[in-house]
Amino acid sequence: MRPGISTLRSIPFLERAPARLLNEIDTISNLVDVHAGEELCRQGEPPTVLHVLIDGQVSLCAEAPDGTAAVVEVLRPVTAFVLAAVLTELPYLMGAKAVESSRLVLIPAPQLRAMIRTEQPLTLAMLGTVARDFRGMVRQVRDLKLRTAAQRLGCYLLAQVPSEDAATARIRLPFEKGLLAGRLGCRQDSLSRAFATLRGVGVETHGATVVLHDIPRLRLFAMPDEWDESRK
Amino acid sequence: MRPGISTLRSIPFLERAPARLLNEIDTISNLVDVHAGEELCRQGEPPTVLHVLIDGQVSLCAEAPDGTAAVVEVLRPVTAFVLAAVLTELPYLMGAKAVESSRLVLIPAPQLRAMIRTEQPLTLAMLGTVARDFRGMVRQVRDLKLRTAAQRLGCYLLAQVPSEDAATARIRLPFEKGLLAGRLGCRQDSLSRAFATLRGVGVETHGATVVLHDIPRLRLFAMPDEWDESRK
Repeated sequence: MRPGISTLRSIPFLERAPARLLNEIDTISNLVDVHAGEELCRQGEPPTVLHVLIDGQVSLCAEAPDGTAAVVEVLRPVTAFVLAAVLTELPYLMGAKAVESSRLVLIPAPQLRAMIRTEQPLTLAMLGTVARDFRGMVRQVRDLKLRTAAQRLGCYLLAQVPSEDAATARIRLPFEKGLLAGRLGCRQDSLSRAFATLRGVGVETHGATVVLHDIPRLRLFAMPDEWDESRK
Repeated sequence: MRPGISTLRSIPFLERAPARLLNEIDTISNLVDVHAGEELCRQGEPPTVLHVLIDGQVSLCAEAPDGTAAVVEVLRPVTAFVLAAVLTELPYLMGAKAVESSRLVLIPAPQLRAMIRTEQPLTLAMLGTVARDFRGMVRQVRDLKLRTAAQRLGCYLLAQVPSEDAATARIRLPFEKGLLAGRLGCRQDSLSRAFATLRGVGVETHGATVVLHDIPRLRLFAMPDEWDESRK
């Protein structure tokens, strides 16, 4: 099934694409629905399509040769993955799996690469997307090297608070704790210890609901970067 | 001082640029020499120029608000840094410092951003550069989440071996052990323990010289990714 123009228009790098180009992409692309747990791409394989998550959640996982796996990122719509592999024509460094029932647009990789060789505004829009992807990974490297698991959890929770200057907040974890542990680069038992540590700075958990009783105190403890553009 | 056309031509994203464009960039850019330890850009500040390392070595460091610092990457020529910040017009997520006396080309950021809005081949070449930068960061996240410090050190040493199928090798560490520890995401004492662990798989160190007596055995231990394009 074709994705249709309005769905394509929701993809960040196609927001300002001319109708002619959107029609062309619509003709060659597919809209697919996938089940929770379905594998979408496999680490080490060459990309044949660009995946764009339209609805649902997808996890990007890295696997060591001994089978150890780590969650690198959990994506929410609308996000293309993994653009860098498609553009460089190099094998995926991460595999992707649907966390829940999801809807995706699949754009064939060779045609997409041909388009960016001639369509200047598209190339420019993609350059912005990859640059932001890069900054997302730099933030993870920074966090893994500079912060404890409890501080990483604190930064993650603070990034979920919608208002800049709220003193308290009640948030819902967007995915289950096993995935959250992987995303934060720690084991499940370390995540539990991290939540226990954060109780001391006013963080209370009831299942997937987390209450932040003292945001200024949590900020002092977790020390999020001031210029962090990852806030949702 | 102007960098000159042949220097500009050595920058990966300018390799195939037309003479007209190179002349234009030459007119607005500067070639500068810096001393070891000199600060080149500061985390949190907006980029005003794109730095390109032509000769020497530069470290990219992240700093937490409490002053804790971590080496994210050590760059060797010819490499632009930090392209993603320049393209997105967002503050640097990392600071940069010369590790040794270095030579750099500085290209003013606003003019560069104006050029990529109209010069299709330049935009495309930069897209490739940022995509490869992204993959470098993904590899770090993978390594930090999946491998022990000794395995990360083993992978690092294997990447320094020039020949694909050598059984033994003698390599020189390209920078001092404090930087190496930071790059691998561990403290100096953990790096010493990692070297001690690797002795068991035939790795012998004499200062900055490292002898790998049994590369197949080291590979089995460190499990480098097969499709790793980071090999120098």
